[in-house]
Amino acid sequence: MFVDLNSDLGESFGSWKMGNDAQILPVVSSANIACGFHAGDPLGILNTVKQAVKLGVTIGAHVAYPDLVGFGRRNMDLSYDELMADVLYQISALDGLAKSSGSKVKYVKPHGALYNTIAKDSAQAKAVIDAIKIYDDQLVLVALAGSNLVEQARSSGLKVVSEAFADRAYNSDGSLVSRRLEGAVLHDATFVAKRVVSMLQQGGVESIDGKFTPIQADTICLHGDTDGALQMSAAIKAELLKNNILIRSFCA
Amino acid sequence: MFVDLNSDLGESFGSWKMGNDAQILPVVSSANIACGFHAGDPLGILNTVKQAVKLGVTIGAHVAYPDLVGFGRRNMDLSYDELMADVLYQISALDGLAKSSGSKVKYVKPHGALYNTIAKDSAQAKAVIDAIKIYDDQLVLVALAGSNLVEQARSSGLKVVSEAFADRAYNSDGSLVSRRLEGAVLHDATFVAKRVVSMLQQGGVESIDGKFTPIQADTICLHGDTDGALQMSAAIKAELLKNNILIRSFCA
Amino acid sequence: MFVDLNSDLGESFGSWKMGNDAQILPVVSSANIACGFHAGDPLGILNTVKQAVKLGVTIGAHVAYPDLVGFGRRNMDLSYDELMADVLYQISALDGLAKSSGSKVKYVKPHGALYNTIAKDSAQAKAVIDAIKIYDDQLVLVALAGSNLVEQARSSGLKVVSEAFADRAYNSDGSLVSRRLEGAVLHDATFVAKRVVSMLQQGGVESIDGKFTPIQADTICLHGDTDGALQMSAAIKAELLKNNILIRSFCA
Amino acid sequence: MFVDLNSDLGESFGSWKMGNDAQILPVVSSANIACGFHAGDPLGILNTVKQAVKLGVTIGAHVAYPDLVGFGRRNMDLSYDELMADVLYQISALDGLAKSSGSKVKYVKPHGALYNTIAKDSAQAKAVIDAIKIYDDQLVLVALAGSNLVEQARSSGLKVVSEAFADRAYNSDGSLVSRRLEGAVLHDATFVAKRVVSMLQQGGVESIDGKFTPIQADTICLHGDTDGALQMSAAIKAELLKNNILIRSFCA
Repeated sequence: MFVDLNSDLGESFGSWKMGNDAQILPVVSSANIACGFHAGDPLGILNTVKQAVKLGVTIGAHVAYPDLVGFGRRNMDLSYDELMADVLYQISALDGLAKSSGSKVKYVKPHGALYNTIAKDSAQAKAVIDAIKIYDDQLVLVALAGSNLVEQARSSGLKVVSEAFADRAYNSDGSLVSRRLEGAVLHDATFVAKRVVSMLQQGGVESIDGKFTPIQADTICLHGDTDGALQMSAAIKAELLKNNILIRSFCA
Repeated sequence: MFVDLNSDLGESFGSWKMGNDAQILPVVSSANIACGFHAGDPLGILNTVKQAVKLGVTIGAHVAYPDLVGFGRRNMDLSYDELMADVLYQISALDGLAKSSGSKVKYVKPHGALYNTIAKDSAQAKAVIDAIKIYDDQLVLVALAGSNLVEQARSSGLKVVSEAFADRAYNSDGSLVSRRLEGAVLHDATFVAKRVVSMLQQGGVESIDGKFTPIQADTICLHGDTDGALQMSAAIKAELLKNNILIRSFCA
Repeated sequence: MFVDLNSDLGESFGSWKMGNDAQILPVVSSANIACGFHAGDPLGILNTVKQAVKLGVTIGAHVAYPDLVGFGRRNMDLSYDELMADVLYQISALDGLAKSSGSKVKYVKPHGALYNTIAKDSAQAKAVIDAIKIYDDQLVLVALAGSNLVEQARSSGLKVVSEAFADRAYNSDGSLVSRRLEGAVLHDATFVAKRVVSMLQQGGVESIDGKFTPIQADTICLHGDTDGALQMSAAIKAELLKNNILIRSFCA
Repeated sequence: MFVDLNSDLGESFGSWKMGNDAQILPVVSSANIACGFHAGDPLGILNTVKQAVKLGVTIGAHVAYPDLVGFGRRNMDLSYDELMADVLYQISALDGLAKSSGSKVKYVKPHGALYNTIAKDSAQAKAVIDAIKIYDDQLVLVALAGSNLVEQARSSGLKVVSEAFADRAYNSDGSLVSRRLEGAVLHDATFVAKRVVSMLQQGGVESIDGKFTPIQADTICLHGDTDGALQMSAAIKAELLKNNILIRSFCA
């Protein structure tokens, strides 16, 4: 039994630092690296790419809306052509940096508002899917477990992996509980670590209203931006290994 | 006998149009395509790339300082690491768009202030040279004919082609007459066309003070941003063909 | 009888030119000047401000979403706080340039997607209204005639003027016919000019399905970005004067 | 006897945090607030302005080159017109936010590379001086103590205050020891605090090569971006008060 652990990386910008790439990279098997649209300047991205390559962590393009000041977290009404080209440009830029470091981009994970929007908006989803297929149809798409996007991308011929969140509560329909509601985010590292193991072993979690809810968890999203987040990530990894669940990239 | 004709393309940005890609592309053998730092948004760049591929025009990365509002025409004091990563990112982004259109970037031509600065500043030049070599050491660098950069890049193992300007006056040391001086820019299309032919046949031009000045002209820079510029470019091409000088990419 | 004529100005950006400020300024009584978020760099804005002041044209802040590459034409899901601060910053910047040129900002006209969104989205509308009131509660808001925004802004204590479009077809409920539908945009300058006069004299227009539709037209939006647009604008002005309808700023 | 203490504030950008405005604001009498060109988004700037107003700290415009990714620390070769308009725009934007919060911009301090460049480059200095005078000739310019800029700005009719650095070593000609040299930056909070007092009482400091060097210190630059910097700033303030040196804005 195995699972992938991914985290968002390369999210600094110029003099502004974000996250702790050096500390979270040894924990994960997949690095979602910013491409310069929501975060990341070329030098910072390149440094993160080099660290990931050194540690054998699989590189993914963390593509986003063109919105630095909003960190890609605000919905933007891009046309199909604009979004397709924006995603293609971002994958291209990151893949070149990866190639120059002896590696390559192996998957694409949309970021922030784009991630949430394409989980249900099939028009914007098509732009992302087509950009990936045009660039390299062997690239894998990371999509929200249970979302419409999983089926849409798979039908189009793309490889898809389903992503689950270790520290987020689920509704009984498999969707995430909104961050605006109480109990949406879990904070107890030990509890969260055990929950991830049981999610994988049982194929689901208990929803916020107490029902067993199936969740396909090919990859688990971890955070490394605070000391608490780093500790929780380490706890999850330790609990997985203790339960003989191997951590490896879905591209391995 | 043959020569390459190049022009700056893909320099629109969002709703702002610049140049006339559709009209100058059929005239040239090499397209210096903006990469998003001084000009060019992903969708506009992609459209220009597709047109170039359709017409069999060789694609080059027109890399620049990160200065949209200044159109890359203002000197910027970037560190070696910043400039190296910025150039690498730009080549990567464009090459991915080219690859997705069935082609690839075959050369790099620095733009504007970067072009002028690295002609003589060996530290910034080294950042550009290293970025090219790290990305693909078979890429060709387009450098100002007679500049220090030609020798520096060649010594480092890079292929270099020398660029001459059809409509610019030269000093007797082979440098361009400053645009601030009278007579720096030539406007008579017929005269300029004949001058290009004689530059190639005789290996040089008459300088602004009347002396024969050797100029290595592997590629000639043409303009397509105004009706007058388009006409002069067409006149140069016609005069070259009339004199049995073949127009072809230096990468052919 | 009188009416205001307004146009979008200062929409160039760095080396990219847009519109023809020098030719449209003498035609209008109000200049909606870009503030740097969808268009306009400081030097270009300043030059437009100076020309407007010289000609006695009233200056308005053409505030927009922060989206240069999309020219402010794409919806963005900004929070109340973000949008309020963005609008306040834009009015402030333009007012300082106007003040330095011996004038001041007298009204605010939201641009593009922001204009359309706040016509019906009361939450984003409140952010714009509050920014204006915090900056200077004597500033006038230009709003789409017949939209919810007119009433919302007026209720909040703001002065509002209603804007009509000379060259756009109207639905019988007073809304604009979508640009995607045939007949949405009128192209005959003579017809459009006469229609503007009758809109003012009769207080409405014939809708696309042939019914008289009341339109409150305090200000008419003109275009100056093409030769055809300039000619239509001049024709409208001439027809207004011929019918003894005075052209003057709603702030006069 | 009195002195002004200033610090750089409002330097966060969107989701990226920098400095600790809430903790350094109570220590200083003058706040150099970023205007959006090297740092600062409208909402973040507005929040810092409000805090400064609440605490009665004088607001200054921390104007910079348009270079977010380089944090305004890289020289840029702007024309007089470009730089003049850029500075005017930044002062305007910040003054509007200050005005809306019941205050106003009272001084201008150029940031980073612009600060260093105009200390000796009289052409760029003139652009900054003229922008200030055009906006409001009662604004004060903060300039490097002993630099050419002090005399140039004063000759032009501008009020100038000289700035000294608490934690930097000086050469015997009054210039700052380059950061690249050993001993350029002082780290002992107690020593630095006593040195500031003696600088004010004696009108100078001991240079790095042991000579008494006159320094006109109207305002002292403090840092608040790290715990160590905050402690040193607090130590300086405490030592000043202990020696009956009043801390107050040069605009008071």
